[in-house]
Amino acid sequence: MNKQLTTQKNIDATQLALKKTLDIICGKWRLYIIYQLGTEARRYGELRRMIPDVSEKVLIQELKALVSLGVIEKKAFNEVPPRVEYSLTAKGQKVLPTLLDLTSIGETFLEP
Amino acid sequence: MNKQLTTQKNIDATQLALKKTLDIICGKWRLYIIYQLGTEARRYGELRRMIPDVSEKVLIQELKALVSLGVIEKKAFNEVPPRVEYSLTAKGQKVLPTLLDLTSIGETFLEP
Repeated sequence: MNKQLTTQKNIDATQLALKKTLDIICGKWRLYIIYQLGTEARRYGELRRMIPDVSEKVLIQELKALVSLGVIEKKAFNEVPPRVEYSLTAKGQKVLPTLLDLTSIGETFLEP
Repeated sequence: MNKQLTTQKNIDATQLALKKTLDIICGKWRLYIIYQLGTEARRYGELRRMIPDVSEKVLIQELKALVSLGVIEKKAFNEVPPRVEYSLTAKGQKVLPTLLDLTSIGETFLEP
């Protein structure tokens, strides 16, 4: 594989990984939802109380997006009344430390 | 400061830091421009060649946004023809390792 081809392949791989990262991170509430879940399983109602500024519609939409991205999982318990819990998947747990580190970027740029 | 007030204050500080982080990171090409600069100073033409898929208009717009966010700086040299170089600011350099780590998130979710 000549050098130019390998460099182009590396660029494509990095661009692909970056695009997937941005899918997960970008969105006003996505990171914040992940932070509030952390290592716990949370019910929908708990998340609503923990993030009072987000609308019901947006919270449901962002939870669906994070489930489809494989970052969180949704478990429904066969109880009366029905119970639904959200928690990070194994991959979600794996990237949590890197995600938690992200506030340090914002903090650096908020410093005078 | 009672516990509830401090927790609310922590939430606000985290949300603020996250918002600033997302301002810097989110945008199809922002992270990619930062990666291509890395620890080097690059001319506009170099960046255009390094990121062939971005349009001229978008590249100029994203460079302007990154300058106004304080992530990169633009230096104009009084030469004929005029020379303009972009490079990461001190704060940009400080967060570069955390930014470079971001691809690991996408890579994790691209794994089968």
